[in-house]
Amino acid sequence: MTTTRRPTYQPTEQATAAAQLLGLLARDLAADRLTTDPAATAAYATDRSGARPDGQPLAVVHATHADEVRTTLRHAGALRVPVVPRGAGTGLSGGATAAEGTVVLDLARMNRIVEISPDDQLAVVEPGVITADLDRAAAAYGLRYAPDPASAAISTIGGNIATNAGGLRCAKYGVTRDSVLGLDAVLADGTLLRTGRRTVKGVAGYDLTALLTGSEGTLGVITAATLRLRPIPVAVSTLAAYFRTFEDAAAGASALTAARIEPAMAELLDGPVLAAIDAARGTELRARGGALLLVQCDGAGAAAEAARVAGLLTPRAASVETTDDPAEAAALLAARRLALPALERLGRPLIEDIAVPRSQLARAVREIEAISAHHGVPVYSLAHAADGNLHPILVIDPALTEVPAAAWAAASDIFALALRLGGTLTGEHGVGTLKRQWLADELGEDSLALHHRLKAAFDPYGILNPGKAI
Amino acid sequence: MTTTRRPTYQPTEQATAAAQLLGLLARDLAADRLTTDPAATAAYATDRSGARPDGQPLAVVHATHADEVRTTLRHAGALRVPVVPRGAGTGLSGGATAAEGTVVLDLARMNRIVEISPDDQLAVVEPGVITADLDRAAAAYGLRYAPDPASAAISTIGGNIATNAGGLRCAKYGVTRDSVLGLDAVLADGTLLRTGRRTVKGVAGYDLTALLTGSEGTLGVITAATLRLRPIPVAVSTLAAYFRTFEDAAAGASALTAARIEPAMAELLDGPVLAAIDAARGTELRARGGALLLVQCDGAGAAAEAARVAGLLTPRAASVETTDDPAEAAALLAARRLALPALERLGRPLIEDIAVPRSQLARAVREIEAISAHHGVPVYSLAHAADGNLHPILVIDPALTEVPAAAWAAASDIFALALRLGGTLTGEHGVGTLKRQWLADELGEDSLALHHRLKAAFDPYGILNPGKAI
Repeated sequence: MTTTRRPTYQPTEQATAAAQLLGLLARDLAADRLTTDPAATAAYATDRSGARPDGQPLAVVHATHADEVRTTLRHAGALRVPVVPRGAGTGLSGGATAAEGTVVLDLARMNRIVEISPDDQLAVVEPGVITADLDRAAAAYGLRYAPDPASAAISTIGGNIATNAGGLRCAKYGVTRDSVLGLDAVLADGTLLRTGRRTVKGVAGYDLTALLTGSEGTLGVITAATLRLRPIPVAVSTLAAYFRTFEDAAAGASALTAARIEPAMAELLDGPVLAAIDAARGTELRARGGALLLVQCDGAGAAAEAARVAGLLTPRAASVETTDDPAEAAALLAARRLALPALERLGRPLIEDIAVPRSQLARAVREIEAISAHHGVPVYSLAHAADGNLHPILVIDPALTEVPAAAWAAASDIFALALRLGGTLTGEHGVGTLKRQWLADELGEDSLALHHRLKAAFDPYGILNPGKAI
Repeated sequence: MTTTRRPTYQPTEQATAAAQLLGLLARDLAADRLTTDPAATAAYATDRSGARPDGQPLAVVHATHADEVRTTLRHAGALRVPVVPRGAGTGLSGGATAAEGTVVLDLARMNRIVEISPDDQLAVVEPGVITADLDRAAAAYGLRYAPDPASAAISTIGGNIATNAGGLRCAKYGVTRDSVLGLDAVLADGTLLRTGRRTVKGVAGYDLTALLTGSEGTLGVITAATLRLRPIPVAVSTLAAYFRTFEDAAAGASALTAARIEPAMAELLDGPVLAAIDAARGTELRARGGALLLVQCDGAGAAAEAARVAGLLTPRAASVETTDDPAEAAALLAARRLALPALERLGRPLIEDIAVPRSQLARAVREIEAISAHHGVPVYSLAHAADGNLHPILVIDPALTEVPAAAWAAASDIFALALRLGGTLTGEHGVGTLKRQWLADELGEDSLALHHRLKAAFDPYGILNPGKAI
């Protein structure tokens, strides 16, 4: 059962509503805020997932202030025209794709860092701020924005919040949700909702901040965020350990967990990924082992912890290097940074994003190898080992215009595996359009029905990012 | 506007529904699960807040299994009889008080620790598990349950989740929400909802786990929780610093923040609290200073961090002691543990629970002193300094049956102060019945209306813990 009512206009009614909306937006917004030229709006139909919806949006609103977001939603809500919020369009699940008849609400111009308070260790930002820019601005005060998705240099805070983005430091510092103290969000009828507060604790009312975080633009459009900043660690130690096999490397990561060590980062790359980097960069990483585990320890005890890590990994590894030097650390971590560009040379990467309980990591990779062999689809694996978040990457022949059936079948088997091991379809990228067909398998029908009732409580006519996430 | 429909029965209809419900519960539950004797149910009317509703519950169901919770809610939901979930009844905001005509759903017997997984660093527990018992059980694996409300020895996990309880270690390790990975909750119609997963990351669907956490029993009844466990720190250093004035102590706490130190604990006690402990225990704490700041640093760098803390506090303090010895640490921390019992000797403590941005702590205490003087109501202050959570404690003459108007006026001024400083009415205790009249001041009308729509999406007839939280 769903209580979300969708627009049920006939084509002519739709066309009338669209024309009316464009008229109202042209009347109420400055000229440079509105793009309706089809040549220009076409670029907003898709996002970094490469997913392509039918048609393209009828307009793009480039909002520069929350009031413009309110105006857009008030009119679109009244006319029941669907609205797709968009940050930098770097999402990997198709959450920002915009089909025929939609209005894209582009928030990239709302990119001001409104405030950084070193005393309260927080920042107030607009949604279009690039994540790495906030981190850099915080660094001037000895602080950082802890969540560090791999896309930090190109993705926006608003998009990170919409997908509850993760990153490399989550195991120790949490995901985006753990750094969001409060939000301003515009609801589907143009109402401005304020959630949360400037304190790290607070339990008055329901946790609407967490509910909006990860809701992929289906509940409201974020127009400001109050974010927690944390001290830059006083010391960082970095280790790179090559292992003969991925299983050995996963066992090494498990040994750290068993020893109760909480690394700030534990990244795993499998042999095919190392070979792809070699092919792209002329390196010889694959010759050093069949898997690479990169570990960082930070804080006042970083060196002592790193020594314990080295002691645990050395008996299992082919080689272990440790450094406290930032430049050497950057060199060791380069492999992780180069992995995705290297895979992009081989074809179109379809980046999956399952998470499994930490203890199941080795088993998950073993079974993914079997799935890859069974369907004849090459799969490359990266993992955030400390939190069991695994990115099996299916590389598709770029000559194909559609994802081949074998790749979908392999992805489907990988999702089923994640659920069988007690995990999830998506650890940090979101459901978007690409994983929607498997969502009921994870949530169950009762939960999905409740999701639709909650959606209706925020957006009774279903105009916000329809067809996404739930 | 509210869309929550309340039962609108006339008294005779109510009596019929109640009689019918008792008949169905007697039919479907084992005899020892149901208490209807008024002499026995009276004890369930109130909780540790001391708040007294009108009348007393008509029955108490002592559930031992989720199926009994489902049976109770299915029947109560169908007959529109209000249900009050209850753990240990240690809440301080009146969230578990049960008025005339309600059924109390007592979860204390559901107290099994179902699983502890050291490999996945998680526990699966029933809601009636005492928080300290879980922590002790985890310790056998070198792990701990990080949230540590002051009530940990007597409160239940279910109650902690219902109020999103905080504690002393929150600044570094987060509140209860940050340790809840997934929940089983029974909805108002008896449906069993499963949220979350066994992984530390996951973004499929809305964050119902966070929405239920802190919802004070108004959205569903928790019947199981999957909880994150974390390694016990390898080392702990404890400091006790006495200061001439509370302002000096608050300045000391701010100096730690400014130096980018993240202590695991930073507890502040004011002079009147120290004097109350002296009166109760024959100690001479007040003679050592007008405020006490207790700090813990933990992890591999604990000793190094503690040395930095001592260096920062010494120029500002009357005295600073540091120890790495657990017994000595316990002696230093005793003052914090003894504070509330000492105040209880003076009268009935009304424990407020505001949180303010960290930088506003000293100002908040200064203004609370003025409020205390203005209304002639003695106020004693404890604070979790690292997260700005302040407990101003109003001590009421125990001979009075009602809270006097001057105390309510002082409390009201304290809440207004918290909001003026960018904070909240309640950092960790919940709204319950006692703070409900101020909630709209914090949330605003639009947010409150949305809260009611969300409530209706879970519980359309408003049978779950009516009159609480929202």
